Amino acid sequence: MKNIAVILSGCGVYDGTEIHEAVLTLLAIEQAGAKYRCFAPNINQHHVINHLSGEVMAAEQRNVLIESARIARGDVEDLSELIVAEFDALIVPGGFGAAKNLSDFAINADSYTVNKQVLSACQGFANASKPAGYMCIAPAMVPIIYGSNVQATIGHDVGVAQSLTAAGLAHQNCAVDDIVVETQHKLVSTPAYMLATSLTEAASGINKLVAKVIDLTN
Amino acid sequence: MKNIAVILSGCGVYDGTEIHEAVLTLLAIEQAGAKYRCFAPNINQHHVINHLSGEVMAAEQRNVLIESARIARGDVEDLSELIVAEFDALIVPGGFGAAKNLSDFAINADSYTVNKQVLSACQGFANASKPAGYMCIAPAMVPIIYGSNVQATIGHDVGVAQSLTAAGLAHQNCAVDDIVVETQHKLVSTPAYMLATSLTEAASGINKLVAKVIDLTN
Repeated sequence: MKNIAVILSGCGVYDGTEIHEAVLTLLAIEQAGAKYRCFAPNINQHHVINHLSGEVMAAEQRNVLIESARIARGDVEDLSELIVAEFDALIVPGGFGAAKNLSDFAINADSYTVNKQVLSACQGFANASKPAGYMCIAPAMVPIIYGSNVQATIGHDVGVAQSLTAAGLAHQNCAVDDIVVETQHKLVSTPAYMLATSLTEAASGINKLVAKVIDLTN
Repeated sequence: MKNIAVILSGCGVYDGTEIHEAVLTLLAIEQAGAKYRCFAPNINQHHVINHLSGEVMAAEQRNVLIESARIARGDVEDLSELIVAEFDALIVPGGFGAAKNLSDFAINADSYTVNKQVLSACQGFANASKPAGYMCIAPAMVPIIYGSNVQATIGHDVGVAQSLTAAGLAHQNCAVDDIVVETQHKLVSTPAYMLATSLTEAASGINKLVAKVIDLTN
């Protein structure tokens, strides 16, 4: 049975993992006959957003690992303990957590970095030629993880695509129900909620991404 | 297009809505060709649980409506504003939020009550003979909403079933991939994560519940 590592970044689209994307990913992994383990960095969130009003809750501080445990029903591990050799592939769902906690792309688009633990784990899969899937805004990390001129998609948002092109990504426009496959690096990406207006739309691309990532493990 | 009201109780299995159950419910509603709107009471959570350690975070206070917005990507409404006439049916996912925030069954099993806003909304559907689906521990509210000797299931946990039988529920044991249908009251229930050990198992019962609830609207 294939074993997939899933990296979460909190719990909620505006300050953590996009919940629908995470659940659809875990469901698709199960339904493909594979299994998963969830990981998250043990760091504080960049901030906490009131998901009803959209405003920052300045007095609140939450931890990425602890909040990610909500999506994983408690079964999440510290990212610093991820051992690449135990897995066949990696999948990183989106949500602003990928651009605020795993990286700081949402804050410093012109000079963003990826959290060192995240970079180490993700480059571990890249260096071992193990397939990986990045969805929604998570592909913003691709030029830092894989280097320049590697193909991925964040959908077709012109501003975001320009920022990522400047960072070295070979950005490809992509529809919500489709995926971009970088065969050389076994790297798969899909827009998910960068474009999706419903769970069904998000699932259409995510299901293809998960299937392709698992296919590339063979 | 059928319109389903979904009542959430926070965001996370141990102190709010069980996230997988909520997402699977919304997905199943969409895939049945229906639509939904999410609601939650604007009240404080009973408490906040660290989902990694299982411990109470005594210094934290969170609001059920605001945290529910994480599951609904911001699109959640105050339960006090739910108008039953605008909907064809109701679905209440589980998680401890149903037994700590919507009711206090988890705290006072021998003499529990249902939050007044929740009771008003749920009885509105019952009194209008509109179908409703309750999953996981949410059927604990059934004897208070519908009165005594109405059938529903929380799976086959002997202790919980005894408490609910004492409260007046006509409890029926049920497998994770099955549903209990109370035709007279158009009431459907399924164990979901009272029994499920995976998303696939949870989905098997939830998909049947959603399909039956929508079928009963005809």
